[in-house]
Amino acid sequence: MTKKLLFTPGPLSTSAAVKNAMMRDLGSRDAEFIAAVREIRSELVSLAGPGSDDYEAVLMQGSGTFAIESAIGSAVPRGGRLLVAVNGAYGRRMVQIAERLGIETEALLFAEDEPVDAGHVSEALNAGAPFTHAAVVHCETTTGILNPVDRIGEAVHRTGAVFMVDAMSSFGGIPLDVAGCHIDFLVSSANKCVQGVPGFGFVLAKRTSLLECEGLARSVSLDLLAQWRGLETDGQFRFTPPTHAILAFRRALRELAEEGGVAGRCARYSANHAALMDEMTAMGFVPYLRREYQSPIITTFRYPAHPRFHFEQFYAALSRRGFVIYPGKLTRENCFRIGTIGNIFPADIARLAAAVREVLAEAGLTS
Amino acid sequence: MTKKLLFTPGPLSTSAAVKNAMMRDLGSRDAEFIAAVREIRSELVSLAGPGSDDYEAVLMQGSGTFAIESAIGSAVPRGGRLLVAVNGAYGRRMVQIAERLGIETEALLFAEDEPVDAGHVSEALNAGAPFTHAAVVHCETTTGILNPVDRIGEAVHRTGAVFMVDAMSSFGGIPLDVAGCHIDFLVSSANKCVQGVPGFGFVLAKRTSLLECEGLARSVSLDLLAQWRGLETDGQFRFTPPTHAILAFRRALRELAEEGGVAGRCARYSANHAALMDEMTAMGFVPYLRREYQSPIITTFRYPAHPRFHFEQFYAALSRRGFVIYPGKLTRENCFRIGTIGNIFPADIARLAAAVREVLAEAGLTS
Repeated sequence: MTKKLLFTPGPLSTSAAVKNAMMRDLGSRDAEFIAAVREIRSELVSLAGPGSDDYEAVLMQGSGTFAIESAIGSAVPRGGRLLVAVNGAYGRRMVQIAERLGIETEALLFAEDEPVDAGHVSEALNAGAPFTHAAVVHCETTTGILNPVDRIGEAVHRTGAVFMVDAMSSFGGIPLDVAGCHIDFLVSSANKCVQGVPGFGFVLAKRTSLLECEGLARSVSLDLLAQWRGLETDGQFRFTPPTHAILAFRRALRELAEEGGVAGRCARYSANHAALMDEMTAMGFVPYLRREYQSPIITTFRYPAHPRFHFEQFYAALSRRGFVIYPGKLTRENCFRIGTIGNIFPADIARLAAAVREVLAEAGLTS
Repeated sequence: MTKKLLFTPGPLSTSAAVKNAMMRDLGSRDAEFIAAVREIRSELVSLAGPGSDDYEAVLMQGSGTFAIESAIGSAVPRGGRLLVAVNGAYGRRMVQIAERLGIETEALLFAEDEPVDAGHVSEALNAGAPFTHAAVVHCETTTGILNPVDRIGEAVHRTGAVFMVDAMSSFGGIPLDVAGCHIDFLVSSANKCVQGVPGFGFVLAKRTSLLECEGLARSVSLDLLAQWRGLETDGQFRFTPPTHAILAFRRALRELAEEGGVAGRCARYSANHAALMDEMTAMGFVPYLRREYQSPIITTFRYPAHPRFHFEQFYAALSRRGFVIYPGKLTRENCFRIGTIGNIFPADIARLAAAVREVLAEAGLTS
């Protein structure tokens, strides 16, 4: 029953107050629960930035991937064509989801260590048969790279296509002008930068684009428009909501506001990330990405060249000391990842770094 | 911040220890979390009764409806035909899900106050083009009626069709011999008779039937076979699991065992239900169902004939006193429901009844 700090992209470490908010059983039709859902939806919309009046927040049970599938499966019509710009596993997952749904999909592939290029997206959108929808990941958690959603949104907007953004690991932690980036559907989840517990995802949908989903959803459970209509009609979910995770999320949103909103949170994550980079590079670890592409969300490091380095041992030794890091997910290179989001602070980074030093010394891996 | 007792079909009242189990953030790849998932899956299988060796437990994020859609959408092949025996809203929901997925579906309709008749199911299965799959709800939460899953299973088995059972509100609370009833896929969820918190559902699948789902799933998120393969391969969920709800469920399963398993729990629910019937009929409330059709899970009562009875006021007055009951869901009759599952005991029923008496007296509704 050791308490461990999670340096992961979520589920992540949450505050004691967020967890404490789950110590009650509320009925899903209870007035207080309905008020909590209303507060959450309103607060999420306000996080979308200027122009957020045109947006609606729809909560969707399940993991973030369920919310992604809900958006794709509810928004792309039969006969629609989807372009997905891919530079990591989460871009590939959108392609997989769309193809499974029978949607004609084209993957525009980029290297995993390079941001999606808006110019190439523009070219692809303008070549051949028109695309009705285009999608990209904001912060590709595979590496921690940030994609230029503003310029990509501009390119998509010029073609009139609907723009869908997977902002799973960035929303709430990196300022994003959702309307300014011409985003029609933005998807994130409870257990990322808002620092709630897992159990549901959410979609910020431009109201006019959401209303165009009429009759399109391929699934009852993941029907985004029906879910919104349910929440609008009587404030209730159509199907059993994760009541405890919702109460935790309400508390998490209040803590986000207390920290100074997205800007305040981004400042802490940036301080976490800067401390991590200083510590890790001082120990000789080499980050995978060029610094200018790197988000403050999660950082990928190459395995040390030392022949005695074994990731599983390294991971386990840190875990025994109470620090949980994250394996890599690259297609070709041996890397591991360290997240800098959640209820962690620069002092925790210093403690993690001290543990890394200990583990390296113990394994005889210090140079 | 009043603590209320929930007399609802779930989310329901959970024990303090179940909620306390959520006071930790575990990484989704953490060894302890993986061990918790393994323990849960193994325990769920053992709850299936004799012959459970042939079954696999697959956990699925989202509400119970998501798990239902996962089973239907993963098991019925293109060209398959599904018969759903319907005597309430949850049977109708299976029809809606299957139709949305493009599955040729026939609804065999029964009155809401009569159990599904196995003979009629048999006739329908043998009339016209053959059905590949048949589905029924065990305890139809709409009314609280119990359907004879054993005799229906026998009828389905004789035709060779795959048998799917929505045991959402009964599994863990009413003994069921899953193999003996010839069930191929049984679906339930965390926040029902096992008394966990909402966040995921689960499917008990006959291994041979599960393996026949290869290439069939219409959804990536709700792909039951892929979810099982993920859990079997490295013990991990394919997509972010509701870690806190999982820890709560592990604790809930241990409490179920301590209570004497399904038989012990059923005894308490039956005592709750008997106490409720005594109290409510003594006050003049009329149950909707004939006693022999009634489960101990949830009971439907007709609105009193008194012209001053207003359900919303009745509900609100009880809620202010800390007792949450449940509205009706019948297509034609004005009823409300009272659940007798969750961490509630006959003494709680007595307290609820005292509150009902108070509320009736206050409103001048006593005869």
